[in-house]
Amino acid sequence: MIYLTRRETFNAAHRLYNNHWSEEENEVTFGKCANKNWHGHNYVLFVTVKGIPDPEIGFIVNVKDLSRIIKEVIVDKLDHTNLNLDVDFIPKTIHPTTENLVKIIWEQLLPHIKGCQLHSIKLQETENIYAEYFGE
Amino acid sequence: MIYLTRRETFNAAHRLYNNHWSEEENEVTFGKCANKNWHGHNYVLFVTVKGIPDPEIGFIVNVKDLSRIIKEVIVDKLDHTNLNLDVDFIPKTIHPTTENLVKIIWEQLLPHIKGCQLHSIKLQETENIYAEYFGE
Amino acid sequence: MIYLTRRETFNAAHRLYNNHWSEEENEVTFGKCANKNWHGHNYVLFVTVKGIPDPEIGFIVNVKDLSRIIKEVIVDKLDHTNLNLDVDFIPKTIHPTTENLVKIIWEQLLPHIKGCQLHSIKLQETENIYAEYFGE
Amino acid sequence: MIYLTRRETFNAAHRLYNNHWSEEENEVTFGKCANKNWHGHNYVLFVTVKGIPDPEIGFIVNVKDLSRIIKEVIVDKLDHTNLNLDVDFIPKTIHPTTENLVKIIWEQLLPHIKGCQLHSIKLQETENIYAEYFGE
Amino acid sequence: MIYLTRRETFNAAHRLYNNHWSEEENEVTFGKCANKNWHGHNYVLFVTVKGIPDPEIGFIVNVKDLSRIIKEVIVDKLDHTNLNLDVDFIPKTIHPTTENLVKIIWEQLLPHIKGCQLHSIKLQETENIYAEYFGE
Amino acid sequence: MIYLTRRETFNAAHRLYNNHWSEEENEVTFGKCANKNWHGHNYVLFVTVKGIPDPEIGFIVNVKDLSRIIKEVIVDKLDHTNLNLDVDFIPKTIHPTTENLVKIIWEQLLPHIKGCQLHSIKLQETENIYAEYFGE
Repeated sequence: MIYLTRRETFNAAHRLYNNHWSEEENEVTFGKCANKNWHGHNYVLFVTVKGIPDPEIGFIVNVKDLSRIIKEVIVDKLDHTNLNLDVDFIPKTIHPTTENLVKIIWEQLLPHIKGCQLHSIKLQETENIYAEYFGE
Repeated sequence: MIYLTRRETFNAAHRLYNNHWSEEENEVTFGKCANKNWHGHNYVLFVTVKGIPDPEIGFIVNVKDLSRIIKEVIVDKLDHTNLNLDVDFIPKTIHPTTENLVKIIWEQLLPHIKGCQLHSIKLQETENIYAEYFGE
Repeated sequence: MIYLTRRETFNAAHRLYNNHWSEEENEVTFGKCANKNWHGHNYVLFVTVKGIPDPEIGFIVNVKDLSRIIKEVIVDKLDHTNLNLDVDFIPKTIHPTTENLVKIIWEQLLPHIKGCQLHSIKLQETENIYAEYFGE
Repeated sequence: MIYLTRRETFNAAHRLYNNHWSEEENEVTFGKCANKNWHGHNYVLFVTVKGIPDPEIGFIVNVKDLSRIIKEVIVDKLDHTNLNLDVDFIPKTIHPTTENLVKIIWEQLLPHIKGCQLHSIKLQETENIYAEYFGE
Repeated sequence: MIYLTRRETFNAAHRLYNNHWSEEENEVTFGKCANKNWHGHNYVLFVTVKGIPDPEIGFIVNVKDLSRIIKEVIVDKLDHTNLNLDVDFIPKTIHPTTENLVKIIWEQLLPHIKGCQLHSIKLQETENIYAEYFGE
Repeated sequence: MIYLTRRETFNAAHRLYNNHWSEEENEVTFGKCANKNWHGHNYVLFVTVKGIPDPEIGFIVNVKDLSRIIKEVIVDKLDHTNLNLDVDFIPKTIHPTTENLVKIIWEQLLPHIKGCQLHSIKLQETENIYAEYFGE
């Protein structure tokens, strides 16, 4: 079993706040991340698949195809968006934290991965923070 | 003359659009950067000063002081903000492009640099784009 | 289960030598790392925790709190120190190698991680060397 | 159990094509990677071993020895070569894809790792693609 | 005057040798770089232009246009090629060293830079080597 | 005129303090950098030379020779040392700050650069701090 990882990037705005809470409660928990006018990040996405290389081509999946799928299903829908407002598959009831985004991206991508298995989604929000999800 | 550079980071939202133009014209020039709901970046700021090291301390400027000044004057005012809406010293009539931001940051920082000279401001917007300003 | 990683940095001096050995034996095994006047590194620390995001806040742990704990318990006690001499929780009988440091850092940090599980400690000593520990 | 990783680099040329196929078929599957005059990469290799640190020296393996072995067994034989033509241990019937290379490197390196266990081979082909193999 | 830099990447094979020399002379000067079966690199290209931002759009040049030009004129013609054999604008009489490539890239790109000035070409061959050219 | 840069690394301990001052005065100016038991860094050194490529070889200087010279003259003498105690060419009366080190490295290296001109020395102390010297 070989693991293959493709890296992609997107830039987006978001805000962390709980609209059942007062402004003060949001400030205590989320600090500057609750800014009502948003802030944003350069996100770096790592998609890892696993499988046995096909001897005919030496690939577990053609990385050009994998990149195209990630772009169509994820990057084109997240890049230069507001993650709280603009993305159909991010429910308005879920905070767009890095922890939640890796699970949402996994679920979107999973049905499109054919001929190999999705192994993990890693999403880097800043150079100091990243989250990972392995499907369970 | 020695050049000393301090790196700092901040995360912000912005949008590029010209409000004298139609939505179509904005789309043609700014593409996804014109998204009305904003997008954002992890900005990386490099401030370079120059001077002669003081023999008593070996510094042209104490880098802790330089870092504190950059944080107070620039980073604390830009981090987790919306660059179009939230920052006093970014005029509403000026697009918050990386090219314009380096000049604005230079002008804000210049009066606070004492005992050495401000040499350049470099601002990286993504891993593929950065701008620099040398004061003229 | 989501995995969340926080990156922190510290700079420290150390030396690798066995004081039951002759200088020659130390030289053979540790080479320049045995220099009696020390050398040092910019260490990069990655702390990974795992858990289920709390729906109220979208976090498995508030990364600001995680960062504060890592700083108080680890970084403030290792940064700008001599790892052989200055740190209470590094036994004088243990070599401050990257391999030993990840286990020591794990043991220090573990009692302070609440509401989620500590998953791994990764410590990078140079761009070419890092060690990891998963608690067993 | 501690995991220790050593990073090494090498630069090589290669080409992806199936010589049982027509030029058109190769173009469809491999695109520019099939260029008959080759292309190349700066490969980055991460070798991870695991074991218990020896209390006498604080190492699971002396990283200088590990580095020397990786250089002798792998890097010196791959660096500044053509991966399709020049390397004894890369069979001519196997495509020199990153997926295949990690398994080949594992098999070459395994007999030389003594006193600890080989855990994984990771090979980065570009900043956007890497493969990993864990021995099964 | 603001300086704006765009980063692009390409992967290519090359070989350094002087065909007026014996194999031994080539070996002495170029070492492994003279390998007759080629080797290759992940090149990283930084194109810097300078100008005054247009107040209407905040750009000295629309970075999407700059990126498109660099791709059309340079990257599409160098990516996945053999720099000794495949590129029209690299004379067969000139060694494809990093030093020579920056000047060649400058000359190709210069006629296509409109509305601002080309300031420098920087080309990174490995993480340890890069060359720069400023047009004179 | 082409500029060529070679990157090298070394790891060293140092301490910043003025031995004409009290411990309190040192603490105020140098903070944790004054720790009497030292701390250390992974230094990254960039040496830039300039010249006209020799048409015979395509180099302004053979980068292997440049690397060897930097190693012999600088890196071998600084790597795994204490910059305050161990290095002949760092005067005991000069603080081993990054600002001072770039000038000292320039002066050591200059007599050894033949066939091209030394242009600049850049030394990175941490990911957030670096100094540069251009010879005047």
